[in-house]
Amino acid sequence: LTVGIVGLGLIGGSFAKSAKEFGHTVLGFDLSEQTYLEAKLFSTVDGVLDNASLGKCEVVLIALYPSAAVRYIQEHLAYFKKGGFVIDCCGIKRVVCDAVQSIADENGFMFIGGHPMAGTQFTGFKHSRSTLFKNAPIILTPPDSVSSDILMLERLKQFFIGLGFGSVIFTSPSEHDKMIAYTSQLAHILSSAYIKSPSAMGHKGFSAGSYKDMTRVARLNEDMWTELFMDNRDYLSAELGILIDNLTEYKSVVDSGDKAALHTLLREGKEIKERVERS
Amino acid sequence: LTVGIVGLGLIGGSFAKSAKEFGHTVLGFDLSEQTYLEAKLFSTVDGVLDNASLGKCEVVLIALYPSAAVRYIQEHLAYFKKGGFVIDCCGIKRVVCDAVQSIADENGFMFIGGHPMAGTQFTGFKHSRSTLFKNAPIILTPPDSVSSDILMLERLKQFFIGLGFGSVIFTSPSEHDKMIAYTSQLAHILSSAYIKSPSAMGHKGFSAGSYKDMTRVARLNEDMWTELFMDNRDYLSAELGILIDNLTEYKSVVDSGDKAALHTLLREGKEIKERVERS
Repeated sequence: LTVGIVGLGLIGGSFAKSAKEFGHTVLGFDLSEQTYLEAKLFSTVDGVLDNASLGKCEVVLIALYPSAAVRYIQEHLAYFKKGGFVIDCCGIKRVVCDAVQSIADENGFMFIGGHPMAGTQFTGFKHSRSTLFKNAPIILTPPDSVSSDILMLERLKQFFIGLGFGSVIFTSPSEHDKMIAYTSQLAHILSSAYIKSPSAMGHKGFSAGSYKDMTRVARLNEDMWTELFMDNRDYLSAELGILIDNLTEYKSVVDSGDKAALHTLLREGKEIKERVERS
Repeated sequence: LTVGIVGLGLIGGSFAKSAKEFGHTVLGFDLSEQTYLEAKLFSTVDGVLDNASLGKCEVVLIALYPSAAVRYIQEHLAYFKKGGFVIDCCGIKRVVCDAVQSIADENGFMFIGGHPMAGTQFTGFKHSRSTLFKNAPIILTPPDSVSSDILMLERLKQFFIGLGFGSVIFTSPSEHDKMIAYTSQLAHILSSAYIKSPSAMGHKGFSAGSYKDMTRVARLNEDMWTELFMDNRDYLSAELGILIDNLTEYKSVVDSGDKAALHTLLREGKEIKERVERS
């Protein structure tokens, strides 16, 4: 296939590298000409993705922030290949899908919301790699017109499995955003809040694996995450509320000195963890 | 040296294995005869640690819960080698050191509070391994009589470096307990609270590395941690309060929709993380 990739950062760059490895022809675009030239120099892309070459791409992957992804699609409606797939890679799906789903139908291409569940605390093309998605899940939120077409879903699945993904999950934008508020967004806020204790500066030598795990993603890209969090305020706020309530319950029990109650809270947590892992 | 090890679980078993690898003679004891026999069968211990053989041990490591460690020391005062080291491995230090430091002096052995900064979410002898402490720090809280003796500190340091530790940190029981409330205890409570969202059961396919990191240690030993948390209530409660306040600040900003304020909170967190890593 000819695959177009818009945005050659960590995610777009990794898509380009894995698509090349699979044997696809890759056309790329980045706002930074230097990034594009670097990708070209390393043969990560075969050529430039522009208004003319967009029409050759059976698949276009858009690896930009949500607002920029929406803008890119709105500005290139006439150039996408008729009947081709246009797939974004944003961490939230409702705002993107709501903005472009119907105009995609009107303009004869298939828009699919996408979210590859992989990343690192580092950003940019220099950290991208062909193995970033290896065995990871990718979540897709196709519109009804695609969901009802088994052959179309199978084509999408095979495309991503070919790039190294371990599984393809089809769901709705709303269900995606609800789950992602818990599994990813809450974890990032928590990591950022955790590092703000005055004790953080003295931790050296006093930390084991659990501390490192808790604070790893505090090193985040605040531009991107501000946008992702604000676009998912309802679900994120609900998860934050649940976590704060639960922590407050542990604190009350610690303060009261009630050993049996603390033991119960911890045992319940362990049992849920075990149940979740078995599921 | 002849090293006595009391309690052959994850920590005691790992000490036994690394001490054997280094070439020490290892005498062991466990309340479970089956665990002792297993350790003997695998040549992890050379023989049994009892009232008679305790007196041969230049170093005795006590890898029990805090209350059991204190009790063991109180019940074996007469049997420890005069001038020998007795070192506990508990995750909190004030309650242990306060209970036994002075009776150690009176009975002619040197008690040193110890806390190896390594572990896993699994427990028991079958998970112990000689490499558990490789490059990890160990924290020691020696009394003034030992702290003022550079040669004695050097002997202690060389003993633990010989077992594979990367560094030996000398501090006070109180400073230890304050830091550990933040770096380890808070992380465990948080992991346990995090898994309690109703969203946890549906996470499959929606989780990346950050979620796994946040919930890893929810699978904890609730008997041990209840005791550790309750013995460190003052410092732990303070850290929980700080974290809840910080999370509440993030939630307020998310709820208000103030993008600039959220961006600032996230940038501050990233900068602290970077400063902590450089320190």
